[in-house]
Amino acid sequence: MLNIPRISISRRLRNTPVTHRVNQAGVKAYTVYNHMLLPTVFESLEADYHHLKHRVQVWDVACERQVEVAGPDAAKLMQLITPRDLSSMQDDQCFYIPMVDDTGGLLNDPVLLRIDRNRYWISIADSDVLFWVKGLAVGMNLDVDIHEPDVSPLAVQGPNSDALMERVFGESIRDIRFFRHKKISFQDKPLVIARSGFSRQGGFEIYVEGSARGEPLWDALFEAGRDLDVRAGCPNVIERIEGGLLSYGNDMTRENSPHECALQKFCNAPDGVAFIGREALSKITPGNLKRQIRGLKIEGDPVPPCTESWYLTKHGRFAGKASSAAWSPDLACNIGIAMIDREFWEIGTELSIHFDNQQRMAEVCSLPFPR
Amino acid sequence: MLNIPRISISRRLRNTPVTHRVNQAGVKAYTVYNHMLLPTVFESLEADYHHLKHRVQVWDVACERQVEVAGPDAAKLMQLITPRDLSSMQDDQCFYIPMVDDTGGLLNDPVLLRIDRNRYWISIADSDVLFWVKGLAVGMNLDVDIHEPDVSPLAVQGPNSDALMERVFGESIRDIRFFRHKKISFQDKPLVIARSGFSRQGGFEIYVEGSARGEPLWDALFEAGRDLDVRAGCPNVIERIEGGLLSYGNDMTRENSPHECALQKFCNAPDGVAFIGREALSKITPGNLKRQIRGLKIEGDPVPPCTESWYLTKHGRFAGKASSAAWSPDLACNIGIAMIDREFWEIGTELSIHFDNQQRMAEVCSLPFPR
Repeated sequence: MLNIPRISISRRLRNTPVTHRVNQAGVKAYTVYNHMLLPTVFESLEADYHHLKHRVQVWDVACERQVEVAGPDAAKLMQLITPRDLSSMQDDQCFYIPMVDDTGGLLNDPVLLRIDRNRYWISIADSDVLFWVKGLAVGMNLDVDIHEPDVSPLAVQGPNSDALMERVFGESIRDIRFFRHKKISFQDKPLVIARSGFSRQGGFEIYVEGSARGEPLWDALFEAGRDLDVRAGCPNVIERIEGGLLSYGNDMTRENSPHECALQKFCNAPDGVAFIGREALSKITPGNLKRQIRGLKIEGDPVPPCTESWYLTKHGRFAGKASSAAWSPDLACNIGIAMIDREFWEIGTELSIHFDNQQRMAEVCSLPFPR
Repeated sequence: MLNIPRISISRRLRNTPVTHRVNQAGVKAYTVYNHMLLPTVFESLEADYHHLKHRVQVWDVACERQVEVAGPDAAKLMQLITPRDLSSMQDDQCFYIPMVDDTGGLLNDPVLLRIDRNRYWISIADSDVLFWVKGLAVGMNLDVDIHEPDVSPLAVQGPNSDALMERVFGESIRDIRFFRHKKISFQDKPLVIARSGFSRQGGFEIYVEGSARGEPLWDALFEAGRDLDVRAGCPNVIERIEGGLLSYGNDMTRENSPHECALQKFCNAPDGVAFIGREALSKITPGNLKRQIRGLKIEGDPVPPCTESWYLTKHGRFAGKASSAAWSPDLACNIGIAMIDREFWEIGTELSIHFDNQQRMAEVCSLPFPR
């Protein structure tokens, strides 16, 4: 990594409540997400990957900022911003909601938490959702309060997550179902905890309300998990590609519809329910979709980091673009995520992929990759 | 810089049209700005600083993204988003416009370019202004088209800027007045060029329309400027603090009003002109302003980078927070920018500043620092 540039940290790239702990844990690289630091490597991408898949990690994902929307018009506004039907949502549920603009382009793919009937947290991917919902609320004169609360998620991920969490929060933690949340006490104050997270290894996201509580909770998790080999970790690009977890800004942008990202099952608001982008999305049918997200297997030695779109061709014709790629130790091949044109998107299609003045064979496959 | 973490670059941290040239020029560190790479160091902060103040540099500031707003309601929407009076704006003008939300909090401090009567470019600081203006437009059902065009500013900054620009664009470049723009041909296609930039050393911003034109323009500038000692550069934190140039996200955030940031002269829309935040801002008077931006001189050895707010106290009482700081070689002292409470904001007030388990004396001073 000798020639990789450093990151210049300024106040604008916000610290999190546990940045000091992350630095003490020996973080080697950061990215920036919602104007905040997000660790990306501790020991190495591959060592972090193996550890995540076999042990348990604590992740500083404070950058999953919350946009709190509260007030009499909160439910109405939440339904306006997503094609997903929210009518059945319970107070303890987390909903993955594609958010689209008037053209049907994706603005974000957050997890929505309903805290109570008139109060929601939008747990966002990397774009300023607060600006969008505030713009709508001001423009439509809605009766809501919108702000970014002092809430910083800390994730516990990996097969030993339940064991670790039970030691810190008690055994009722095991009862939380997938994409449900619950208020559980830590040091006599409640915390919202959900069974969720940006890996396929199982685990929880703890919505740490109050920055001062970050370090005590971090320390409690490490103290309790010593014999479980708990380590500082972070979303791991290899594991997330294996698991087919799309990353907003990498694998999907404003240029893409939910359907192109294979998120059509989340576009289920019934007729008569108003949401922004309905007209644009209504024109998309299985028959006229131009491109869609797929997995890729790329031949040869480990690929470099995918820092920009890699073009895919077939006999010299444009076939698509890859947006994420990594060497998978467990699959013993390079894997990637790509947006592929209709003519080439059948599983098994062999394409050429172009990067760093190389050309290699890449095979279209389904997502997620088989374990 | 041995223990400073690397930056993990992914497609989400977008490359610019000249990222390859920036890497070839030996960039040592990046930050992220509008989801895009922004170089921060080439030789060293101090070497880059001296060179900027005495020669000429080419800056990859593609991250100053443009939000294009076009259509019959464009002028109306532009006035809605800023307290600055836009009624006199000419087609060749650039206006620095504070943008505030309904609470009067700053959302961005872009430069607005009027391209023609119904078409504007908002050249933005680091926040998703597109989401805000699109939210307002959708919410108010305005007749505008809003998108991010393929326009990537390249800045030429430093005392030799006019000399270099004349060689590439012809002598008419010298006629462009400060904060005016003009369409000038490069390789037979027009480019919008403004006399502006994020330094106090003079220069231009070239709005490179069409990514493919970035490298040819970069190469032409370096070819023409060899004997002027032209180098790759970037906004320099030392020079910008000396010049009192505020950075959105560092020195001002949504928590601040324009008045707190000493931008009240840009809040001049006459009575009867509608803009968002008018009611909130109307409550601010010189008599009730609680805090305001100031310069700081900090005693002692060169300070470390200011990666988070540094507290200011007076006899143990909270007095404010510093948001930027650096050692100035030309002033031979540490300088900074801070938001200071009313009781302590008089020029010459001596405060204590706290960082890295140190406490030092800091003196309140005016901005910009005297040259």
